[in-house]
Amino acid sequence: MSDTVVVGLDIGGTSTRATALTLNGQRLGSGRAGGGNPTSHGAERAAGELLAALREALADVDPARVRAGTIGLAGAARLLADPAGRDAFDRAWRDAGLRCPYAVHGDALVAYASGTASPEGTVLIAGTGAIAARVGEMRLDRVADGHGWLLGDAGSGFWLGREAVRRLLADLDQARTPGPLATAVLTELLGSAEVAARPRDTVDVLVQTVTRRPPVELARLAPLVVAAAVDGEPVAGALIEEAAAHLAESTARIRPTGDTTPIVLGGGLLTGATPLAAAVRAEVGRRWPDAPLRSAGDGAAAAAWLAARNLPEVTEPAALHALLVPPTS
Amino acid sequence: MSDTVVVGLDIGGTSTRATALTLNGQRLGSGRAGGGNPTSHGAERAAGELLAALREALADVDPARVRAGTIGLAGAARLLADPAGRDAFDRAWRDAGLRCPYAVHGDALVAYASGTASPEGTVLIAGTGAIAARVGEMRLDRVADGHGWLLGDAGSGFWLGREAVRRLLADLDQARTPGPLATAVLTELLGSAEVAARPRDTVDVLVQTVTRRPPVELARLAPLVVAAAVDGEPVAGALIEEAAAHLAESTARIRPTGDTTPIVLGGGLLTGATPLAAAVRAEVGRRWPDAPLRSAGDGAAAAAWLAARNLPEVTEPAALHALLVPPTS
Repeated sequence: MSDTVVVGLDIGGTSTRATALTLNGQRLGSGRAGGGNPTSHGAERAAGELLAALREALADVDPARVRAGTIGLAGAARLLADPAGRDAFDRAWRDAGLRCPYAVHGDALVAYASGTASPEGTVLIAGTGAIAARVGEMRLDRVADGHGWLLGDAGSGFWLGREAVRRLLADLDQARTPGPLATAVLTELLGSAEVAARPRDTVDVLVQTVTRRPPVELARLAPLVVAAAVDGEPVAGALIEEAAAHLAESTARIRPTGDTTPIVLGGGLLTGATPLAAAVRAEVGRRWPDAPLRSAGDGAAAAAWLAARNLPEVTEPAALHALLVPPTS
Repeated sequence: MSDTVVVGLDIGGTSTRATALTLNGQRLGSGRAGGGNPTSHGAERAAGELLAALREALADVDPARVRAGTIGLAGAARLLADPAGRDAFDRAWRDAGLRCPYAVHGDALVAYASGTASPEGTVLIAGTGAIAARVGEMRLDRVADGHGWLLGDAGSGFWLGREAVRRLLADLDQARTPGPLATAVLTELLGSAEVAARPRDTVDVLVQTVTRRPPVELARLAPLVVAAAVDGEPVAGALIEEAAAHLAESTARIRPTGDTTPIVLGGGLLTGATPLAAAVRAEVGRRWPDAPLRSAGDGAAAAAWLAARNLPEVTEPAALHALLVPPTS
């Protein structure tokens, strides 16, 4: 059984990570390459990053030992529906020397599997966007939000950034001196915390500055909200609470009251000891007091486990999860 | 004094209206042309519509009798800051045979003046966008919101349309049968009220459909919310209440508690007997119980009055307002 190797890939917008594991949990190699989201970067480029990460992970591994693989990425459904994209991924897989089949799963399922082996549960992700999904038989079942910045992503990094600007604009409308968070946002956007003698002039410049850029760049302001909340800034604290309430509300759309299956928290804003993670844990803990709460962990390892669990020799997927996927919380 | 003629122009996004009035309130002519917002259509085209409307209004008037004129339009400040745009307007004015000077004011001030002659007051406008402004000495003084769809316009037509789609998406996330408003929105956007067997497929198509269009087109859904609210649909009714609360909150940013100066309601969503107008009247009436509430009326006549009130022979601008601007409510 230890001859068998599985590979897992986690393709994100900013990086691609690959791992090669034995079924004993021995890591034979890992690889890292650039962002490869096929929706935003094109399938060809994504396939190139996939190949680079795979080659690095397999540098010391005989590819014939690899019996299964899984690729997790955002927009998986779109990739699978696009023959040219699927083709590019097939080619990269073969070019890495692999002959075994591979599966493609959405990043939400991989994030879920990085936190738990339970085939039933819920995953809640907040990064630039926000999405909640119910998992059944280790597949994404029902989904809430993930509607994008124009119509949804309530409680996401985009949402936090936009609301921070809105609070700043409200201060200026009222000719009120901007508080610490508003000052940080003003400085970040205009390079100075100075407000014009006629505050409406500053309002106009702010609106033009934000409107000229792609809207999703508002997510870049989210770290300012997080940092201010850590410092106890009240406006930032209120925004974090409001974001947590939105995220819990999205989760409640697809998760019944009284559900005791695990909840995995993923995405840059919910993994680690961030104030939003703490607020979401409190809010989710109130709504589902008996549910185990987990943080998403190593996505590439989780992808490798998703590949391994369908092998005929794997009879206890949960035990294998404990070996393959490093525990988080 | 009755020899003197003043002209007023109200340049909007969908139409341009001109009027020529004597100081006795006699209407000597009126003209109508296409939309001429210089920000969205370019100053040259706006000037062309201005000229067409002016010529029609002055068909039976000796232009030498015209002693003053005012042009009201959205983006007035931007036009005045642009020498080429100002030039195009100067040329149109001369081509219409006019030799008197003219002033350019923002559409918010003209909407305000169409509802009251009081030099101090507040104007609240909700159409595609939303803005509140304090008027002092018959000039726009402080402004709240008007921040555009990405960052503001809370309670506007855009806001109503976007929120209606968001409620529909929430229904679909919950696999709930869409109610009357959600069904109307679904039909308007996708041409059918049918929900896919997997509701997420309908969610994806809806998000793609809305995201492909200019965001501001969401304002086209506002009439569905208004119509549903008239029919007593509860989701629409709640959205109307929420919009009214946002509009009152924006107004409160620039209008102190206890202020008893008039409040003029303008824009397509607040003039006439719409449910949003009723909700705003109730909300504003609670916050400022002693303030006279007026509806915006004939913008071109108000512009003509703004031009006339600075003529040396005009000693009682309020009395002239009663003659020149038809009363609304």
